[in-house]
Amino acid sequence: MTIPPTIEWNDGTIRLIDQRRLPGELTFLECRNVGDLCEAIRTLAIRGAPALGAAGAMGIALAAANGEPLETAARRLKATRPTAVNLAWGVDRALAASDPAKEAVKIAAEDVERNRRLGAHGAGLLPEQARVLTHCNTGSLACVGYGTALGVIRAAHEGGRRPSVWVDETRPVLQGSRLTAWELQRLGIPCMLVADAMAGALMASGEVDAVIVGADRIAANGDVANKIGTYGLAVLARHHEIPFYVAAPVSTFDPSTPDGGAIPVERRGGDEVAVVGGQRLAPAGVAVENRAFDVTPSEFVTAYVTEDGVTRR
Amino acid sequence: MTIPPTIEWNDGTIRLIDQRRLPGELTFLECRNVGDLCEAIRTLAIRGAPALGAAGAMGIALAAANGEPLETAARRLKATRPTAVNLAWGVDRALAASDPAKEAVKIAAEDVERNRRLGAHGAGLLPEQARVLTHCNTGSLACVGYGTALGVIRAAHEGGRRPSVWVDETRPVLQGSRLTAWELQRLGIPCMLVADAMAGALMASGEVDAVIVGADRIAANGDVANKIGTYGLAVLARHHEIPFYVAAPVSTFDPSTPDGGAIPVERRGGDEVAVVGGQRLAPAGVAVENRAFDVTPSEFVTAYVTEDGVTRR
Repeated sequence: MTIPPTIEWNDGTIRLIDQRRLPGELTFLECRNVGDLCEAIRTLAIRGAPALGAAGAMGIALAAANGEPLETAARRLKATRPTAVNLAWGVDRALAASDPAKEAVKIAAEDVERNRRLGAHGAGLLPEQARVLTHCNTGSLACVGYGTALGVIRAAHEGGRRPSVWVDETRPVLQGSRLTAWELQRLGIPCMLVADAMAGALMASGEVDAVIVGADRIAANGDVANKIGTYGLAVLARHHEIPFYVAAPVSTFDPSTPDGGAIPVERRGGDEVAVVGGQRLAPAGVAVENRAFDVTPSEFVTAYVTEDGVTRR
Repeated sequence: MTIPPTIEWNDGTIRLIDQRRLPGELTFLECRNVGDLCEAIRTLAIRGAPALGAAGAMGIALAAANGEPLETAARRLKATRPTAVNLAWGVDRALAASDPAKEAVKIAAEDVERNRRLGAHGAGLLPEQARVLTHCNTGSLACVGYGTALGVIRAAHEGGRRPSVWVDETRPVLQGSRLTAWELQRLGIPCMLVADAMAGALMASGEVDAVIVGADRIAANGDVANKIGTYGLAVLARHHEIPFYVAAPVSTFDPSTPDGGAIPVERRGGDEVAVVGGQRLAPAGVAVENRAFDVTPSEFVTAYVTEDGVTRR
């Protein structure tokens, strides 16, 4: 089965997969103005750093098509999610272009091509029949298409290397169980869903050959902001001498951020943790701390995989 | 607010808090025969190693009251949950007694008294205003009353040391968000609920002063079987030089199990991970690996806290 593009420019509107409805149903959301798009980004109908790059650019195209002031649109879009640098990158690229719509379409097309290159570079890092642990969703749904960290696994699969995947469910938003497991099923790549807290036991029993994750921002010194839980996996991987790979397009690298301490970490509402599917799991009134990302120091990264190749530390 | 006893012998029947219904409602379940009780244990209406000790003893009392063969009842009860050694301990103590019901009631009363002693021993390990991270539920609900690891925090609170608690939600069964947060609210102890994968970020930012967990079985060499995720916390705690305490009654120590490798680890159904509150989160048909426990080697344990005192490694 194929996976449709995550986001498309459709003659003056944006059409995107509504990821809030997955895996139950594959439906599309149409955004006709910047407000629609900001709401879609904030509520995670669309998410994933590379996908947000394309969304940012298309948001500017939307503003241009509607005659909205571009600078205001840029500010509103960038404010929706503070951690991923790709969002601001996409916005700025479209802003600087003479035809924002044409530029946004180009960014989207480039994304898929870039991810295929990234995947091809990374696939060789995985041994034959590697048992790979991944976190969150870094597949087609996190990009316009193909995927970054999951794209590496996909490229290994397409190259006949027969990888299998431990899928962290990735609380609280469950991008692993809802999105990554759905993608892997469609692609016919063997996978096994686990609670996030099982990673240590899997590593201790020798059942993980590599960990591969994406990134929302990589600072100038190589520190990586990514989905909450990434740092814990990096510490566990090092303890068990398991390679820990970060796969992300070059646009994720932010030379203006010196190190991880300078990356703003988004805090989200407590109900993401306390309520699942409309059902309250925790007692009413309990305080919740919900940081969406953590920072993994560069020293924990075995290698970075980009569309330009593999950089070992 | 008080917390009622988790399990009580009630003139020929067992009355227990139905923990599947918490925190939504505090309701009680009545078990009239061994089959009822086995079902309650398997479905986690009652759970927690010390509580299972009392449940095992009361199960034998139930069999005796109903004229069921005691050896058959013992076998059925022990087979419900393989990891916690306390269950078998409670069964065997009641089996060896001339009056199983009297012995079961004695075990239940001893539990609360023992946990108070355990808490008093452990409270001094926590500095003033300690920010303590805990996993799963080791409170009153995991015992007949008071709690083990949570009992240590409770004793520190009662002693005016003003601890606050990071409560891991503890996927997949959410004993942290459903039970521990509920207990701490009732006791007026400040707490903050977090997704399990946030522990690393909290430690890295210096927001955790100690980790304290319970145990389902402690091998002769000190290796600890406890809720899945415990091992990952232990590795993270060591990396950040944060003390890692295990609090459990002496009955949790199993001299007949030489080390962690010999502890049977229960695997539970995949729907605990894939379905929450009747809602399927993961795509239908996805494979799930659901180990209920992991094993933490003794070298990661800063100290064991029992009713007899504190043993540092």
